[in-house]
Formats: sequence, C-alpha cells, structure tokens
Amino acid sequence: MPQRTRRLEEMTWPEVRDAAARGAGVILPVGATEQHGHHLPLATDAILPTELGLAVADPLDLLVAPAIQYGYRSRPLSGGGEGFPGTLSLRAQTLMALVEDVLSQLMRHGFRRIVVLNWHYENQNFVYEAAWLAKERDRADSRVMVCELPFSDLSRTTMDLLFPGGFPGWDVEHASIMETSLMQHLRPELVLFDRAVDDEAERHPWWDVVPTPDAFVPASGTLWKATQASAEKGERAWGEIVRGLAAAIEQELGGAPPA
Amino acid sequence: MPQRTRRLEEMTWPEVRDAAARGAGVILPVGATEQHGHHLPLATDAILPTELGLAVADPLDLLVAPAIQYGYRSRPLSGGGEGFPGTLSLRAQTLMALVEDVLSQLMRHGFRRIVVLNWHYENQNFVYEAAWLAKERDRADSRVMVCELPFSDLSRTTMDLLFPGGFPGWDVEHASIMETSLMQHLRPELVLFDRAVDDEAERHPWWDVVPTPDAFVPASGTLWKATQASAEKGERAWGEIVRGLAAAIEQELGGAPPA
Amino acid sequence: MPQRTRRLEEMTWPEVRDAAARGAGVILPVGATEQHGHHLPLATDAILPTELGLAVADPLDLLVAPAIQYGYRSRPLSGGGEGFPGTLSLRAQTLMALVEDVLSQLMRHGFRRIVVLNWHYENQNFVYEAAWLAKERDRADSRVMVCELPFSDLSRTTMDLLFPGGFPGWDVEHASIMETSLMQHLRPELVLFDRAVDDEAERHPWWDVVPTPDAFVPASGTLWKATQASAEKGERAWGEIVRGLAAAIEQELGGAPPA
Amino acid sequence: MPQRTRRLEEMTWPEVRDAAARGAGVILPVGATEQHGHHLPLATDAILPTELGLAVADPLDLLVAPAIQYGYRSRPLSGGGEGFPGTLSLRAQTLMALVEDVLSQLMRHGFRRIVVLNWHYENQNFVYEAAWLAKERDRADSRVMVCELPFSDLSRTTMDLLFPGGFPGWDVEHASIMETSLMQHLRPELVLFDRAVDDEAERHPWWDVVPTPDAFVPASGTLWKATQASAEKGERAWGEIVRGLAAAIEQELGGAPPA
Amino acid sequence: MPQRTRRLEEMTWPEVRDAAARGAGVILPVGATEQHGHHLPLATDAILPTELGLAVADPLDLLVAPAIQYGYRSRPLSGGGEGFPGTLSLRAQTLMALVEDVLSQLMRHGFRRIVVLNWHYENQNFVYEAAWLAKERDRADSRVMVCELPFSDLSRTTMDLLFPGGFPGWDVEHASIMETSLMQHLRPELVLFDRAVDDEAERHPWWDVVPTPDAFVPASGTLWKATQASAEKGERAWGEIVRGLAAAIEQELGGAPPA
Amino acid sequence: MPQRTRRLEEMTWPEVRDAAARGAGVILPVGATEQHGHHLPLATDAILPTELGLAVADPLDLLVAPAIQYGYRSRPLSGGGEGFPGTLSLRAQTLMALVEDVLSQLMRHGFRRIVVLNWHYENQNFVYEAAWLAKERDRADSRVMVCELPFSDLSRTTMDLLFPGGFPGWDVEHASIMETSLMQHLRPELVLFDRAVDDEAERHPWWDVVPTPDAFVPASGTLWKATQASAEKGERAWGEIVRGLAAAIEQELGGAPPA
Repeated sequence: MPQRTRRLEEMTWPEVRDAAARGAGVILPVGATEQHGHHLPLATDAILPTELGLAVADPLDLLVAPAIQYGYRSRPLSGGGEGFPGTLSLRAQTLMALVEDVLSQLMRHGFRRIVVLNWHYENQNFVYEAAWLAKERDRADSRVMVCELPFSDLSRTTMDLLFPGGFPGWDVEHASIMETSLMQHLRPELVLFDRAVDDEAERHPWWDVVPTPDAFVPASGTLWKATQASAEKGERAWGEIVRGLAAAIEQELGGAPPA
Repeated sequence: MPQRTRRLEEMTWPEVRDAAARGAGVILPVGATEQHGHHLPLATDAILPTELGLAVADPLDLLVAPAIQYGYRSRPLSGGGEGFPGTLSLRAQTLMALVEDVLSQLMRHGFRRIVVLNWHYENQNFVYEAAWLAKERDRADSRVMVCELPFSDLSRTTMDLLFPGGFPGWDVEHASIMETSLMQHLRPELVLFDRAVDDEAERHPWWDVVPTPDAFVPASGTLWKATQASAEKGERAWGEIVRGLAAAIEQELGGAPPA
Repeated sequence: MPQRTRRLEEMTWPEVRDAAARGAGVILPVGATEQHGHHLPLATDAILPTELGLAVADPLDLLVAPAIQYGYRSRPLSGGGEGFPGTLSLRAQTLMALVEDVLSQLMRHGFRRIVVLNWHYENQNFVYEAAWLAKERDRADSRVMVCELPFSDLSRTTMDLLFPGGFPGWDVEHASIMETSLMQHLRPELVLFDRAVDDEAERHPWWDVVPTPDAFVPASGTLWKATQASAEKGERAWGEIVRGLAAAIEQELGGAPPA
Repeated sequence: MPQRTRRLEEMTWPEVRDAAARGAGVILPVGATEQHGHHLPLATDAILPTELGLAVADPLDLLVAPAIQYGYRSRPLSGGGEGFPGTLSLRAQTLMALVEDVLSQLMRHGFRRIVVLNWHYENQNFVYEAAWLAKERDRADSRVMVCELPFSDLSRTTMDLLFPGGFPGWDVEHASIMETSLMQHLRPELVLFDRAVDDEAERHPWWDVVPTPDAFVPASGTLWKATQASAEKGERAWGEIVRGLAAAIEQELGGAPPA
Repeated sequence: MPQRTRRLEEMTWPEVRDAAARGAGVILPVGATEQHGHHLPLATDAILPTELGLAVADPLDLLVAPAIQYGYRSRPLSGGGEGFPGTLSLRAQTLMALVEDVLSQLMRHGFRRIVVLNWHYENQNFVYEAAWLAKERDRADSRVMVCELPFSDLSRTTMDLLFPGGFPGWDVEHASIMETSLMQHLRPELVLFDRAVDDEAERHPWWDVVPTPDAFVPASGTLWKATQASAEKGERAWGEIVRGLAAAIEQELGGAPPA
Repeated sequence: MPQRTRRLEEMTWPEVRDAAARGAGVILPVGATEQHGHHLPLATDAILPTELGLAVADPLDLLVAPAIQYGYRSRPLSGGGEGFPGTLSLRAQTLMALVEDVLSQLMRHGFRRIVVLNWHYENQNFVYEAAWLAKERDRADSRVMVCELPFSDLSRTTMDLLFPGGFPGWDVEHASIMETSLMQHLRPELVLFDRAVDDEAERHPWWDVVPTPDAFVPASGTLWKATQASAEKGERAWGEIVRGLAAAIEQELGGAPPA
C-alpha cells in the first residue's frame, strides 16, 4: 500500500479521503512535553510513539495523525513531577476532551481501525476514557485499540540486555536506560548523552502525595540509570517493540485491506 | 485516642470539630459498585478500603469518611467491563469532581492529614487528579496521601501462600483469590463461596479495546481463580496490608498527635 | 418476591441481572453528610432514605442502590449552613453529574421503574435535573419518579402528635422533632439524645444571604426543638411515611411484576 | 437619590461608575421564558421581578440589571412542564453559570449590595448556587441577598382576598389568580383576560416524574384559577410585595447610602 | 401574516404553537451589556439587533425571541475592554451554552427557520459554535443562519455619507458614528448626545494583549468619532441594513410560508 | 542570545530553566489540522506559525513551544468547512482549555513574555479567551500578546504583488495565493503545486449557516486562486510578515534581555 507519506499532517485531503475509503486505519500518538533529565528533549514522549506509529504504518496501511504533544501532569514517581521547568502539562479534563475530539473526528471521516498509541506513563486511564467518550458519540462500527504502555511486553532476553542490574519497574523507566537507548537509536541528534546521569529519588514508595514531597524527586529528573544506555540497546528494544505492536494491531484490527 | 466511633458518618459535628482541632486526620475510602463474580457483592471495592481505614484509624487518630461508593468504568481486563448488570460506573469527570469536592471540604474544615484510600483498580490516576485539583483550591498546608493500590506490597511469603500456582498480576486479582479471601475473613456473611468459580478471559492482551471485545471478558466476572480462596489466606494478607498501610501513613503523615 | 437481600450493594451481578429481567425496580437514596445538631450523626440524611427504601422494597420488588452519601451545600435556614465541621458538601454540578450517572447506568441495565428518594432538603431541583439529564441519554422507556420531600405528606393527626406546639415548616425540621424521633425509632444506637437541645436561629427570614450571616445559624445546629422527640413519635410518623411512599410508588410505577 | 433611570441597561458607564462609588446596590431579576396559560405572555416571570426591582430601586438607591430572561426547565407541577411551545428553558448548569457570571461582574465593579430577585419557581436553589460560586471568586466584601420567592410572605387579609376559595399552594400559583392579577395591575396591555380559564392538572401528587406524565399537565397551562383575577387584587398584592421587599432589603443590606 | 405582536416574550403559548405549525421562523438577537461611551446606553448592542429583528419580522413571518442581554468579554480594541463600570460580560463557555440552549429549545418546538442576529463584535465565533452545538443535538431539519456582523455590508454611498473622513474599520465602530446615528434614529430618548465625544485609543495595533494595556483604551469608551453622528445618517444606514438583512433571510431561509 | 535550538520540544529542562531565569519569552503557535486544497498539507496552519516563531525567536530571545496542532472547526467561508476528510477539529471548549493550560504552565515556570501566534482564521476569539482564563489563574505579572491574524498587515506594494487581480479578503485566503506562496518558499517539499487549482464557492455571503450549505463550499477546498502563487511571492510576503511580527513583539514585550 505504498503512499507518498504516512504522516497525516503532510497529506492532502483527497489523499485522506482515499485512505478512509479503502479501509486504512489511523494511529494517534499521545505524548507529553515533560522533562527527561539533563540529556533528553522535552518531546521524548511524543517523538517515540510517533516514530513507533510510522514504523508499523506501511504494512498495516495506517496513517499517523499529529501527536498529542501535551499530556497529563507529570507525577513524581514516574516522571519527576510538575516542578521541572519545561514540563507543560494539561488538566485531566483537557487531555480527555482533546483526545476524545480527535478520535471523534476520525470516526466522522469513516476511519474504523483506530489506534491510540500512548507513551507517557501518566496518561493511562485518561486516554481510555477519551476513547470511551468518543465511541459513545459514534454512530458507526469503528474500533479503538488503546495502547497505554506499548513498550511493556519485551522478551526476557531483551530485558536482561537492557537491565543487567535488574529491572526496576516501568514507572522509573523515565529518561533512563530504555528511553535513552531508544532515542540514541532513533534520534541521536537530540540526545546530549554526555550530560546523562544515573539518579534516583531518595524515596520511592508505593503511594503518592500531593503536594509533591521533595524526597520523591531526583534532582536530575532522571529516575534511574541513564548512563548504561546505548544505541545498540535501543535498536534491539525498538525492533521488538515495533514487531510486538505490528502483531498486536494485526490481531486486533486486521492488517491492510486487500488492494 | 479512644473515641466513640471512627466512622465520620456516625459522629456529630462537635466531635468532628474536636478531632480537627487536635490534629486528627481523615481517610477517604474510594471504591466502586462493580460486579465481583458469582460470589462476591457489588460493593466489594467499597467495603475493603472502608474496613482497611477502620483497621488503622485508632492508633493513628484518623476518621473514616463515607466511602465513594461509585467508581470509574469497569475495564474488561481488570474488572470485567461495563457489560455486567449491577456495575454502576461514573464518567471520569464525575468521579474526579466528586473526590475533589470531598477532599476540598475536609481541607476547609482544617484537616491536614488526609488519605485517599482507593481499592478499585480503574480509579487510578483519577483520584490523583482529584487530589491535585483540591489542593489547588486549598489555602492551608494540608497534605493528601494517595494510595491507589494499597494491597500491592505484600511479602514474598504471603504472595506464595496466596498464589501457589504463580501470581497472575494485580489486574486480574478481581473477584479472585485475594479479594475473595479478604472478604471471607472480614465479611463472610456477604460471600456466597459455593458459587465461586475459577475463570479467565479468552484473551488478556497488554492493550485494551473500545468497544469491549467479548473475548476480553470472562463469562463469570471472576478474572482468575476464586476457588482457592480461604479465610485463612485472607487473614494473613489482611494483617500484612493493615500493617503496611499503618506504617506508610505514619511515615508520610505522622502518627497520632500528642494527647 | 422474596430475595436474599434488597441492598444492591450486597447482591451479586447474576442476582441483579435476574431482578432487571423480571421487572424489578431500583430506589436510589440521596442524602448528605451534614451536621445534625449535637445528638444526631452526620449521615442522618443518608440513613433515613436508605431505611425508607428498604421498608418498601419487598412488596414492590425494588432494589435499594448505595445511597448518595454527599449532597448539596447545606443552607443556613434549612440545614445550618456550611460552617459546621463535618458538613461535607458537593457543588451543584458535581451532585447532578453523580446522580445522573447512576441513573443512567441503571437505565443501561434495563431497569424501568426507578425512584430517586431524596431526604436532604437542599438537594431539591438538583436531583430533578439529574433525572432529566439521564433520561435525555436513555434510549428505553424507563420512568424516574423523583421524591424530593417524601416526609412532607403526613396526616393532621400525626402532625399534631409530632408538633403539639405548632408546625414550624419543613425547612427547620432539621435535627429537630421529626428527624430525631425517626432516628430514635430506627437507629437508636446512633442517637445521643442526652445531648439534644432546642434551638433556633436568631433570624429566619424568607430570603437567604451569601455569605451566610451568623444570625441565620443556630449555635447548636438544631434548627428547632429536638428535646420533644421520642421513639414513639418516630414510629408513628415512620409508619405513615412508609405507607405513603409505598402507595405512591405503586400508583406511579406499578407494584411488583407478576411472579 | 434621584437619577435619570434605574434601569442599568439604559445608563451610561460613567453613571454606573458613580453609582458604585456612592454605594448604590444592584438588583438582578431572574425569570424565564415560559408558557403562562392562554392569557399571559411568555415573559411574565421576567417582567414581574423587573417591575418589582424598579418599584423598590429609588428609595434604596438600587440599579436594576437586565433580567435573566431564560430560566430553568419548567416543571409540570409548578409551571406546566416543558411541553408547551414557547417555553424556552436552560439546563441547570447554563443558568447557574449565567447568573454566576453576572454577579461576579457586579462584584468586580465594586457593587456590594446585590439582590438576586427570582420569580420563576423552578429557579430555586440554582440561583443560590450561582451566588455561592460568584462569592467564591470575589475578593471583596460584597453581600448577595437571594430572594427565591419574593411573593410568598403576604398577610392573611391579602391571602383571603386573593384566594377566597382557599390557598392551593405557591407551586400552582402559575398563570393563576395572583400572577394574572399582578399583570392586570402592572401591564394590562399584555393580558388577554378574555382567554383566561380555570384549570388544574388531573393529578398533582407530592412527587414528580420524568418523563412528564400527561396527567400532571393541565391542558391550558394555567395551573389553577385565572378567571378570579382582577387588577384590584393585583394592586393590593403588589403593594404588599413591594413593601415587604423594600423592608427586607433595608434590613439586610441597608438603605440608600447618605447623600 | 399579521399578528398581534412579533415579540415572542409578549406572546402566549398557543400563539407560538400556531406560528411554529405554519412555518414561521425565529430571530434570536444577541447583544451585550457593555459601555458605549458617555452618551449611549449599556444595552446598545442588545437594542439594535432586537430592533433589527422586529424590522424584518412581519414580511418574513418571523418571531423575535428575548435578546441575549449579556455577551462575551469586551475587548479593548473593539469595545473598550473590561475596565469600564457597567460592562457585564460572560465567560465564553457561558455564552455558548446560553445560546446553544435557546436554539436547542426552538428546534425542539419545531422551528426550522432560525436566525442568530448578533451585534456585539466580540461574540463572533462563539455564536457560531453555539449554533453548531445545538444542531448536533437536533433531530430535525432546522437551519440556523448566523449573522455575526449584520451591519457590515453597506453600499459605498452610505459608507461615504457615514464616514466622510474615511472608514476606520468595523472594530472601532463602537459608540461611534454609526451606532450613535442608529440609536438617534431608533431610540433618541436613550441618547445623551450632548455628552458625545470623539476619541480614539493611543495605540490600536493589529494584535491584542492580556492584561489590557492602558494605551489600548480610549478614556471615554468611544473608539472613534461620535459627534459626527446624526439621526439622518442613522435612518439612511438603518434602511439599508434592514433591507439587506431581509433579502438575506429570504434568500437563505425562504420568505413567509403561504397563508 | 545564541542557543542550541529555539524549539522548546528539543530542549532539556535545565535549558528551559536558564531561559526563563534570564527573561526569555515563549511563542505558542496555534494552528489546525485542516484541508488546504489539493496541493497543500493538512498541517499548513500549524507549520506556518511555527516557522514564523522560529524566524523571530533568536533576536528577541524567544522559545517556540510545540504547536497546537488541532484547531477550532473549519468554517465553510474561511476554511471550506467540516466536510473534507482530514479536517480534524476541536470543540471550542476543548481548544480554549488546551491553550489555557499551556499558557498557564508557561506562567507557572516564570515566563513573562508570552506570544500566542495563531494562523487558523477560525481560532480567533477562542485563543483570546484562553489567554484571559490563563491570566485569571496567574499570580505573576506575565503578559500575553495575542496575535490572531499575524499576516494581515502587509504593505500595499506586497499586496499588489500577491493579488494583482485585487484582494478578495483574508477569509478566502485559504490554500490560495498567499498560503501557497509561503509554503512554496518555506517548505516546497510539502507542496504538490501541479495539483493546485483556482476555485471559489458558488456563494460567499456575509453570513454563515449551520448545517453547512453545499453552495458555500468550493469543491477543491481552495477558496480562491492558488495557481498564481510562487515561491518569490512567498519570500516577499514572508519577509514582511517576519519583520512586522518582530517589530510588534519588540514594541509590546520588549526585546531580548541584556546578556
């Protein structure tokens, strides 16, 4: 299903019309503008799901919509919290309305294979509600696949490679080994690796507190080890994530419609 | 700090006034009205955090506010989904406003040690946002401790006791071994154990879909094994959960104020 | 129509499914967490409609949903106002959304005989709007009966018994003769009758003022005479209220469906 | 305090500036666009509080803001319900936001003596919430007097004159004796008295139902007797209502500031 | 199509019923309560579209609904800004909900030819969104014509007559030549022409700033020349505006239905 | 003020911290995902303000935040309307909340020189309200410059160059001469110029209608002439727009803070 571009924002409306008519689907990447330590850009959580969407788009005949660039409030134990300059967050209600509207409009134009592809840990549940609200307004038989943590299903081998010192949990995988590695693999020009540090919060309990206690926040904004990252680790993990997502979408929404 | 009752709903206003004045705190249990298989009552998720709050209230001088009895939409992979009669769910925005208002009122009356004690898996993130919104309206220095999964920090020994066949993840611990055991221990009169079944969804992927696919929903509403539950297991787990929460609150918000 | 329990929260989902299928109805008690003088518990307005619902449930084949425990802001001239510690109120919009969602979910599960049973004076109109909003989203032919003051239709004899010194109006019947009597009859263990006082606001005009003038608020939170209450009076009034409500529901929504 | 006009809408901004500076107050009439039988105009509920405001404005140095012309949904038992063509109602949330905004703006301009003067029975509680919300945003010491039923405090003599056959309750005083009489007295050119009828609903219970049962709605839209109205009755009642309101405002908010 | 009155607020419900049944339409004037210099009343923006509606109502068989008297925030460069006492503005969301509700109710009663007739410059786009929201809730085939600047299409001759010194743009036509002239023609008793001044802001750039810079606000509230106004100019412009609107409505919604 | 990048999304949080500390400002580009004829990409309205922001960022020490990629509903007379596949629009309320949140967060981090740089015609007024709402929540002395049509102030010479056949108005300058020329100049790889057509709606009145009449919509989505565009025209207009904006920001918010 070769086409000029898979980025919906670069397409013209007749191209979108044709795509909807032939049964193409759409991926909506959902990210954040959030601190990612001393070495990764604020848009990391928007870049990664966009790249992931593009990586699976062609074989499954999917378009990639403009990413949701702003996400839910950063929480200290999974993103460092709201205190870091440059973290620009939305209220829950705003995020839900935004995602709902975009999904609703995709449905309106006849898309039935829709994927919400989230990367920002804190957006979980909010994107699900948005999908639910959009479906309640939908008259047609579209289906929305909600991928809240599309990176969470790696093989043991890859996990061991990434985390030779043991896996600390996905919540602290923020500006840490895997995210840094993926960015080194995909967008090395945006990584200031020489500034990367290993860090962790003084306390990391199973509960959270408002207002954010200082002890929950690592000074650097990196929640775990970043210096162990490498482009090679990134390539390995990325391949698995891409294949995993592609298989998932094919299973759930079907592959490219027959030409 | 002996007092007539720890249930705020049974207290009179002068008693609440005195409690706030001496530095007592408040626990707000947050639950749901949601199917819990053939054998557990719809209020399971509201009963358990209420009992848990009462179990730690005395030594820490806490009151237990009336539980939030209705929670966020049941999701198929962690609660069976919206299809089961009796599951009465709120929109995300309604739940957040409700919890925000109650917290905001507690702050207004001078309570500074506040615990949101959630048991319903799907309420995660929504209760955090509610706490955030309430704090934005607060003029005083109250602190809100948000406990989204207060049962998730059990010892290995207890986990092995509960799940001799292996731990399947907290998402499917719904109307299953632990919840059933806890209810047998705490409220045996509400458990119809002879109707309990073991079950699981035909598919349990790492993503979700709207509208809910039938294959994500186990017919019984029990997401894993319920027949292996027992009051003994419940007692063991409960003790640990209670001690864990008590220690956590003491660490985070301090213990009972000096008499 | 004998069943194990009329409390929906204690039921399992198959029991709810069967109830909906046979044409059972649901009562939603709506109350408040609000000061009720020195002698009555904060939950008085939630306890009474719950008890009332249970009292009429069996003959009419109704279930009683978990009560709405938090209500609209207490107004000085009918509840003492927002100043009393322990009065935990919702914004109007929150209350309406909450009741709307619960009603909407009952309709979704096929219930067609629905009763909103309010006891908190200040909830009037808000619960009506909630019913209206839920019906606008309903596709089926459910009917919602909105009982805003279910205690307001007593016989002259009973009124004379309750208020030998003359009836002061339902607005000040707050933590006063009738409410105290009913609680003595129904839940004596929650009444601290030795603390009951007679009281009234310094001023009780036909208008209201924001912010609340001190002169509108009786110091005790009791808006009229509480010391004249008795369990006997409560029993007499309760009987009439129960019979009145049962007759009303039967007239409006029909009785129990044929077995 | 003679001034060119008491209608804020006819004033210029320097006149409003001067009024606020000298301590003048503002009345906000709140009405509805709602059927009033065969003989009264749809704006009856907006006209009457506007006239009432103008009647007390001069001696108390008050301005009369443009009336809220649209009100909350008409309820069958107090306004005939939503079914009559021409009844143009607002959702509760819209009405509350509208009144809140206008009050908030009056506070912003420095007015401290503010009267919400409602005439539409169904607006009760909603206008109170609006006042509360506006005050929460207010930084100054304004006071809002909320008059929800300013016609409800008549003397026995006047009541007997108006209702020689007995008083049926203020809820059915809709397009009936008193409203018709007041309009005959104040705005006779808008009354089509020869079309007036006496009517009543087939059923008028103490509860309400959604959707509206036909039996709750009188065919004419007049809820009680209209043919017994007269300009004389109107004059008598009006005088008392005006004097009552003037005394109330003076008591609550003080009279005209010293010249 | 002669009828007693074209003002919907003065009509009875049977008259509205008949109008809807025969295919009559409705005009909803949308204005503001906003400063209009030293010489024009605050209601200028509500008076003019009401008068305009009445002027075209008869030949096209239209009713004129009660005007929306409160509008969106005054902006400095087109209305002088929020600083002038007496300017009582709504939040955007409130205005949109208000207009949406009224339109939605007109549709509910079967009106299909609906005109939103706005005069307040700042209401643009908000009234369009309101129409869109109302239509989304509409089940029938009504059409809403949205006239945001109904005065903006004058002939060159008339423009030259009005603005002999050159046309400064519609944004500053606020309390200036045309509005003053129209009010002199239509409602001379409300014009204090001897107080009229010519004025302009110190700066009038193509951008706006929040908070409002003082330099954007002319001291008098008149944004351009008011002293050049006259009733004759008003008559001339009015005639053209009325004819233009009548032709537009006829073209878009059709004329009066056949008798 | 040389720095690595002016795109906030590519920066790290310490870089943003330093920028805020030294008094740098932020531009928030606001666009849309909207059809732009057969030849321009859907993101045209987001690309142009982003490029514009980057063009003025360095000399004025401004950062460019991630663009708002989704905008208000496309209106037929200025954007072709909602009917074109690929036009993905937000409800007004969603757009306002989104822009409000981002502005509010910039203020929270200490930025005081903020520019809302809109390109999508239909976003007017909504972005102003968003700025107002954000300022109401702001505690500091930030200033928000709202540029709703930053392309609207070209010199006569340039206008004559762009529109030799006469200027048709900015509303129809959609996917037409200027936008096409600018994109040819700035992002030629995204322009499919061989598909460009000249077009116009069958009718283009001064009012709008909901639902959209077909006659208001040009079949191609180009609202005027696109074939007369050229990169040279684009370069000329762009230079003027950039210089105009730079001068405006310097005048209103000041230039780069002293090093």
